[in-house]
Amino acid sequence: MKFGVVARRDKEEALKLAYRVYDFLKVSGYEVFVDPETYEHFPHFSKEDLVPLNEMEVDFIIVIGGDGTILRVEHKTKKDIPILGINMGTLGFLTEVEPNETFFALNKLMEGDFYIDERIKLRTFIDGKNNVPDALNEVAILTGIPGKIVHLKYYVDNGLADEVRSDGLIISTPTGSTGYAMSAGGPYLDPRIDGIVIAPLAPIALSSRPMVVPATSTIDIRILTTTRNIILAIDGQFYTYLSPEVEISVRKSPRKTKFVRFSREVYPKYTLKIKKKF
Amino acid sequence: MKFGVVARRDKEEALKLAYRVYDFLKVSGYEVFVDPETYEHFPHFSKEDLVPLNEMEVDFIIVIGGDGTILRVEHKTKKDIPILGINMGTLGFLTEVEPNETFFALNKLMEGDFYIDERIKLRTFIDGKNNVPDALNEVAILTGIPGKIVHLKYYVDNGLADEVRSDGLIISTPTGSTGYAMSAGGPYLDPRIDGIVIAPLAPIALSSRPMVVPATSTIDIRILTTTRNIILAIDGQFYTYLSPEVEISVRKSPRKTKFVRFSREVYPKYTLKIKKKF
Amino acid sequence: MKFGVVARRDKEEALKLAYRVYDFLKVSGYEVFVDPETYEHFPHFSKEDLVPLNEMEVDFIIVIGGDGTILRVEHKTKKDIPILGINMGTLGFLTEVEPNETFFALNKLMEGDFYIDERIKLRTFIDGKNNVPDALNEVAILTGIPGKIVHLKYYVDNGLADEVRSDGLIISTPTGSTGYAMSAGGPYLDPRIDGIVIAPLAPIALSSRPMVVPATSTIDIRILTTTRNIILAIDGQFYTYLSPEVEISVRKSPRKTKFVRFSREVYPKYTLKIKKKF
Amino acid sequence: MKFGVVARRDKEEALKLAYRVYDFLKVSGYEVFVDPETYEHFPHFSKEDLVPLNEMEVDFIIVIGGDGTILRVEHKTKKDIPILGINMGTLGFLTEVEPNETFFALNKLMEGDFYIDERIKLRTFIDGKNNVPDALNEVAILTGIPGKIVHLKYYVDNGLADEVRSDGLIISTPTGSTGYAMSAGGPYLDPRIDGIVIAPLAPIALSSRPMVVPATSTIDIRILTTTRNIILAIDGQFYTYLSPEVEISVRKSPRKTKFVRFSREVYPKYTLKIKKKF
Repeated sequence: MKFGVVARRDKEEALKLAYRVYDFLKVSGYEVFVDPETYEHFPHFSKEDLVPLNEMEVDFIIVIGGDGTILRVEHKTKKDIPILGINMGTLGFLTEVEPNETFFALNKLMEGDFYIDERIKLRTFIDGKNNVPDALNEVAILTGIPGKIVHLKYYVDNGLADEVRSDGLIISTPTGSTGYAMSAGGPYLDPRIDGIVIAPLAPIALSSRPMVVPATSTIDIRILTTTRNIILAIDGQFYTYLSPEVEISVRKSPRKTKFVRFSREVYPKYTLKIKKKF
Repeated sequence: MKFGVVARRDKEEALKLAYRVYDFLKVSGYEVFVDPETYEHFPHFSKEDLVPLNEMEVDFIIVIGGDGTILRVEHKTKKDIPILGINMGTLGFLTEVEPNETFFALNKLMEGDFYIDERIKLRTFIDGKNNVPDALNEVAILTGIPGKIVHLKYYVDNGLADEVRSDGLIISTPTGSTGYAMSAGGPYLDPRIDGIVIAPLAPIALSSRPMVVPATSTIDIRILTTTRNIILAIDGQFYTYLSPEVEISVRKSPRKTKFVRFSREVYPKYTLKIKKKF
Repeated sequence: MKFGVVARRDKEEALKLAYRVYDFLKVSGYEVFVDPETYEHFPHFSKEDLVPLNEMEVDFIIVIGGDGTILRVEHKTKKDIPILGINMGTLGFLTEVEPNETFFALNKLMEGDFYIDERIKLRTFIDGKNNVPDALNEVAILTGIPGKIVHLKYYVDNGLADEVRSDGLIISTPTGSTGYAMSAGGPYLDPRIDGIVIAPLAPIALSSRPMVVPATSTIDIRILTTTRNIILAIDGQFYTYLSPEVEISVRKSPRKTKFVRFSREVYPKYTLKIKKKF
Repeated sequence: MKFGVVARRDKEEALKLAYRVYDFLKVSGYEVFVDPETYEHFPHFSKEDLVPLNEMEVDFIIVIGGDGTILRVEHKTKKDIPILGINMGTLGFLTEVEPNETFFALNKLMEGDFYIDERIKLRTFIDGKNNVPDALNEVAILTGIPGKIVHLKYYVDNGLADEVRSDGLIISTPTGSTGYAMSAGGPYLDPRIDGIVIAPLAPIALSSRPMVVPATSTIDIRILTTTRNIILAIDGQFYTYLSPEVEISVRKSPRKTKFVRFSREVYPKYTLKIKKKF
């Protein structure tokens, strides 16, 4: 088995734990690779073990950090490599274990005593082409100028679903349903549901409602505001300005995100965390 | 082919149209049966054609009325007989055609030019036994005294999903998602989603959120308020008071509701109606 | 100075503390009276000191309990006697001190080192007559049958404000804005605002919104559902069924509720408690 | 009496009506001045009557346009000149009459048969200095990067009211309560209430609620996100980027906006328009 190790760059505790994980796995006889950005902030790893995330070909990536770190890894890796997340963030909807459980978790992993939790991702097509990362959480189409509404229509499987004047539109996976989509009024979506949440962000019309559509749907967005650019934000990580004339289309990606889990528990695991959001 | 005909009892226009439908189908050579309650309010049907809904064995039931009339038919029929709904209500989320399209729709039906839209229903078990109707829209567990909260816990597949102090809890099918569940803050659920909405009704805790769980889930509710009875309301049609000590369990029913449809359109058909709710 | 003492009846700790307060005040040389219901659950007070709440003429009432106990006292007393609330409930939006601060607070009270916080109340007129208690929190007009909507119109100063189909309508003081009105989606209303929150409860129309109107307004409610009685609930304490034909009118009461406070703090005192609601 | 005339620049119908109003008032013997921007789009007014808005000293300004046009006039004029708004926008919360009532309204105005509706405005201080326009609708403190939350605390009269991670914070007058604040979940605030709505925009914490505080309050905002600039947007008209280190303070302005009204009606005038928002 080969492992990758990535840590949150702005937290020394995370970097140190990453080094201990790296050391433990090396000593246990495995090949271990480290993300150069992690190395940059903690230059104690062997230089020969550095491999950029987009070239990493390993069996598992151990990510020490918060949900943001996992999203960063997801956006950079090219293959659906299973991720074991060790929580060094706040709530940790995506991470699986707390720091004190790290080596216990690694042992279970090495013994094969785990389960792979596959999560759907969303792929965005701009004028028919996909050249932006897949979303594990959400695709957000936002007004280019905060406070100025964007006027748009969106279609589900070619049928007009709604026309909204709002700060934007959030299109979210079940994984992302506890994030931005929930701030916009969307529901919690059980990860076992093969569905997508669509939620307008601060819409003018009080009758605009979040909806849940099949993950097999094609969601097409057309911008009616012609005078300013819009923003496409993916997972709060990738940002780009787009002309209002583009045709945006969002569909389930052929790729999945794979998480190493030690239990199949959904409740109260995620719903408890919702209550702790702050 | 055999037909059943049922009309909304409080609207003469609906009763008259029911008679014209009955007459048209008889003249066309079919066996047609009429609900005795419809007859009671419009005693022009042949007495020999009267058959109570719970004994009707026909190929299609033509329902002239609103969503309430369809729910009443659903609660009384014993088999999953396809329903063609002619809208004599307000919005008509369940009905398929407007009154002026009636005979056009009947012709398409007779020619076989239609499609059957199957909708899931929810079955409620009280202390392990099911002796209440299946819900096409929603199962509502409500405080027995309006204005006094009920304190309850609910579990999804044996995991604690939430503990709420509220006016009640709405457990809704996709079909019911535009009804009571939406008034409680729930999302629109595309009918193609095999899911269930769970929405607390006016919860004290501001962090309690509607959720969408797989339709294959078992939802168990335990009442913690011990001093007063609760109400179980199914589809706004069937009501019963229950002791707070009962164990309530809700699961997908083996039965389905079948609707005759002339198109597979979902958008904007349903989402437009949401905006017209008043 | 004369004192009244009232305790929550279902909590021995509260009853015991009430006795200690009673004893302390007696020993300090004051006249102290006790609510007979408190005596009934803790028969150690002198029988000669028993005076029913509706006959109590004292300078201060010390209430040991939760918000419900204070609301019960408010509904029974005939004069606007200042209340010092000692929190033996959960959040205690109305109470001023925690049990461990009791004697410290009593000393400040005896030394005159306090401030009176006057809160508005709402008076309800049914067909022009007032024979129900004033509301310190809210007047709720509710469907008589949970799960069946009530259809009503309400007018502010004779102008039609909204027509709603809902589980009911909440008319709340600033004091009550953290209670039932907030569960219905209403805002937090600073107690210094001379206003009233009107919030529909689970309305069918998604465009129905909570509103805040001047406390000098007359709010008239007309019920359009003619087939079943409605419920009038005041502060979750007083309940009555009413014919749908009654004319209900709600106005600011000439009475106020007076609370003994030791600081004029509003923030974060109340807003912190909102976050702890569960 | 002297008049000013201003029209929406992008609608020929509005410009033409402005000319007819100008002509009618001139013929009636009044001094009439025209905004140069209106002239630029419709160069038929006498050049000698051109006076920039910030130098206009007239008794009334007739504004032909939507709410945006009125907000533009408000931001530019230096004195609290009464405005008569003729609706050439969509809903027209601020305008008083429809185009077909124009000359009827002008006659009433000349006869003195009207009433002045004074509305409060909000003044914003940045590091203690006010150099931005007053807000008739709202002051919005927004994330500089759409989709990236801003973390802030806000204080009411020096007490911490809430700490939020959100897309921003809306601080709104009663006039603005039907606008951006309502999209953020805020209530309708009757214009007679001397209060301010504070509403977080898409907050992460589900327990963050809109609140209504006295208009006499000082609202202080401190930004905890240190890495990026924020946006201050006033009435959707004035925009500026600010360093996260600034101290922002919002208070009621000494200035008011004055509207010419022909009735004191509040209901259903404004509440009906809420339902028509789209």
